[in-house]
Amino acid sequence: MVSLLVQKYGGTSVGDADRIRAVADHVARTRRAGNSVVVVVSAMGKTTDDLIRLAHEVSGKLPPRELDMLLTSGERISMSLLCMALADLGVPAVSFTGSQAGIITDTDHTKAKILEIKPERLRKAIADGYVPVVAGFQGMSTDRNITTLGRGGSDTTAVALSAALSADFCEIYTDVSGVFTADPRVVTKAHKIPRISFEEMLELAASGGRVLALRSVEFARNYMVPLHVRSSFTWEPGTWVTEEDPQMEQPVVSAISHDTSEAKITVREVPDKPGVAAKIFLAVADAGINVDMIVQNTSVEGFTDISFTVPRLDIAASLAAANRIAQEIEAKQVISDDQIGRVSLVGAGMKSHPGVTAKMFSTLANEGINIEMISTSAIRISCVMRQDVVERAVIALHEAFEL
Amino acid sequence: MVSLLVQKYGGTSVGDADRIRAVADHVARTRRAGNSVVVVVSAMGKTTDDLIRLAHEVSGKLPPRELDMLLTSGERISMSLLCMALADLGVPAVSFTGSQAGIITDTDHTKAKILEIKPERLRKAIADGYVPVVAGFQGMSTDRNITTLGRGGSDTTAVALSAALSADFCEIYTDVSGVFTADPRVVTKAHKIPRISFEEMLELAASGGRVLALRSVEFARNYMVPLHVRSSFTWEPGTWVTEEDPQMEQPVVSAISHDTSEAKITVREVPDKPGVAAKIFLAVADAGINVDMIVQNTSVEGFTDISFTVPRLDIAASLAAANRIAQEIEAKQVISDDQIGRVSLVGAGMKSHPGVTAKMFSTLANEGINIEMISTSAIRISCVMRQDVVERAVIALHEAFEL
Repeated sequence: MVSLLVQKYGGTSVGDADRIRAVADHVARTRRAGNSVVVVVSAMGKTTDDLIRLAHEVSGKLPPRELDMLLTSGERISMSLLCMALADLGVPAVSFTGSQAGIITDTDHTKAKILEIKPERLRKAIADGYVPVVAGFQGMSTDRNITTLGRGGSDTTAVALSAALSADFCEIYTDVSGVFTADPRVVTKAHKIPRISFEEMLELAASGGRVLALRSVEFARNYMVPLHVRSSFTWEPGTWVTEEDPQMEQPVVSAISHDTSEAKITVREVPDKPGVAAKIFLAVADAGINVDMIVQNTSVEGFTDISFTVPRLDIAASLAAANRIAQEIEAKQVISDDQIGRVSLVGAGMKSHPGVTAKMFSTLANEGINIEMISTSAIRISCVMRQDVVERAVIALHEAFEL
Repeated sequence: MVSLLVQKYGGTSVGDADRIRAVADHVARTRRAGNSVVVVVSAMGKTTDDLIRLAHEVSGKLPPRELDMLLTSGERISMSLLCMALADLGVPAVSFTGSQAGIITDTDHTKAKILEIKPERLRKAIADGYVPVVAGFQGMSTDRNITTLGRGGSDTTAVALSAALSADFCEIYTDVSGVFTADPRVVTKAHKIPRISFEEMLELAASGGRVLALRSVEFARNYMVPLHVRSSFTWEPGTWVTEEDPQMEQPVVSAISHDTSEAKITVREVPDKPGVAAKIFLAVADAGINVDMIVQNTSVEGFTDISFTVPRLDIAASLAAANRIAQEIEAKQVISDDQIGRVSLVGAGMKSHPGVTAKMFSTLANEGINIEMISTSAIRISCVMRQDVVERAVIALHEAFEL
């Protein structure tokens, strides 16, 4: 049976002429094995950074529409070069911009959402025996302007195309060989996970795993697109991200992720009245800031402290928004802390194993690590701690849960 | 009265961040003077060369469709950066790809011809007070692929848009300050011509003048678009290319051009029968080679020699085509000569001054320069000679005709 698969190659995978030729060779092999292939590419290596630097040299203002026009030139270069390399190997290939591939987005420049895919041109190219090479990260808005999809945009393009074309699966080629039980730079014993569920992958992506963007995993889960995350440097089998298999017993803990890119904002001595929390987080959201964890202490004498974490880049904006509201709700003070880190355990088996939280806390206690904030979901436990003990925590937990 | 003008900036004019800011400043001044402006840009400096080099690194094959996709990323970068620089100066600007600007071409990749322009989006942008910044050199074909217009493509875009938008005139900004009586690097006394007719400019462009591409001048003449060729480095007034003014007496000789980029192919001892010349030039044309001058000697004993000039890059292909036909028509031999050069006199006044040819020949004779081929039009005389005497010929003629 002929299968249709989508292969996505990230920026390092197409970083220079040699890499592009290596990718072309792999696409050619995949076809010779009897598959139809659709390729999605990112811009080459540091192209995007170079273009942004150039923009800053030219202007103090970067109108989002023009920034999108600028950045989308990056995939245009990598995709046409890949088609040339494929032609050299005798594989007929044809490149498509986001617009030509029928990727219709909303009008929210620099972080557009895909509204619809009209893959007629891709379907025809496949039927005619071509390999369509599609620009990742970009689309055309409903008002016919060029848009980009923001962080993880190329992964999202690949998954969305897989869904629209009913592909058998979607391969995400990157510079790591899959999803690991922990960051191998921190835990030497960390090993690759052969198979993980969408839910676990979502929790990992949300809690600091950098292998796949959260958004593309959500898309894959919603449209049931099996993902295979693997390396374009070693070409070895990587990690499959699929639906949970109800037949199999789930590992209690599948992986440990950590994140040191956030900061904590605390609003102190908030009068404990209905609606105050809503006011704070409405103001922060209005400033366009993504709040991650939120903790509210037990009220003491009618006052409480509310803490939340935000990307460290957004500290100044978060403080400004929180201070404005603090005055209005008569809170005492707003403080920030950029020396925090977070460690998360993720595992589908947690649902049926009540002792995981206790074991996590006692492991951290044995290491003398103080927990500052806690948040949990059905299959994840996250603890905020001092940044400088994060790596020690990850190593100890990896050992304790015998990963 | 508000005028609408199209300004085209070439690759050196937008070569780096400083140049782009300088161009933005000039566009802003033009607007403040009360004009509506449409800008057409080329790719920055050496971008196109860099992309072609990268393509050769990746592949031995450069499919034309993919080459066009690759190269069109160049204008995308320059046009979005220019819009950002304009935004910085408070000038609302919006970039348009060839496709978005409604430039519809045929399907002849790498040298497409403009079939039609649908400038509705540009008209709306102008009416809304924006400066449209349009990608030069590119369009969308009737089968919805991205095409490029080939050599001089950005000039052609600018002139075609001027015609479609009924612009009052079209400014071509480049790195020289206008059209000169001769190449100032060769003739120290050469000076800028303030005004020249379309016909004269056509002859100059066709005979080696590098300031404007032949094709864009033809377009300007056909649609009566006045051109102003000028420098984006000095911003001084340049050369106006307009319709001939019948009220004014025309100079006998306006300018001298020279060209050392061609080679001569000679088919020797061709049996002098009807149809042999047609066979030769059909074969050469089928090989996609542009023949420039053609000379056929008087027949001696039923045989003649046929010589023609071609771009030096096409020598091998021309020889191959000519040799194939030489066999068929039983000619003796095909030889090539890459050491030729051509010098041309251009002037609308020649039509009414019969002595120009004689004066040109005697001037060259006095310099001891041998004439190898001659071709003339109503307003041009061209002589082919040894390449190493071309500069001496240009200097002597510039002096003799008191330019």
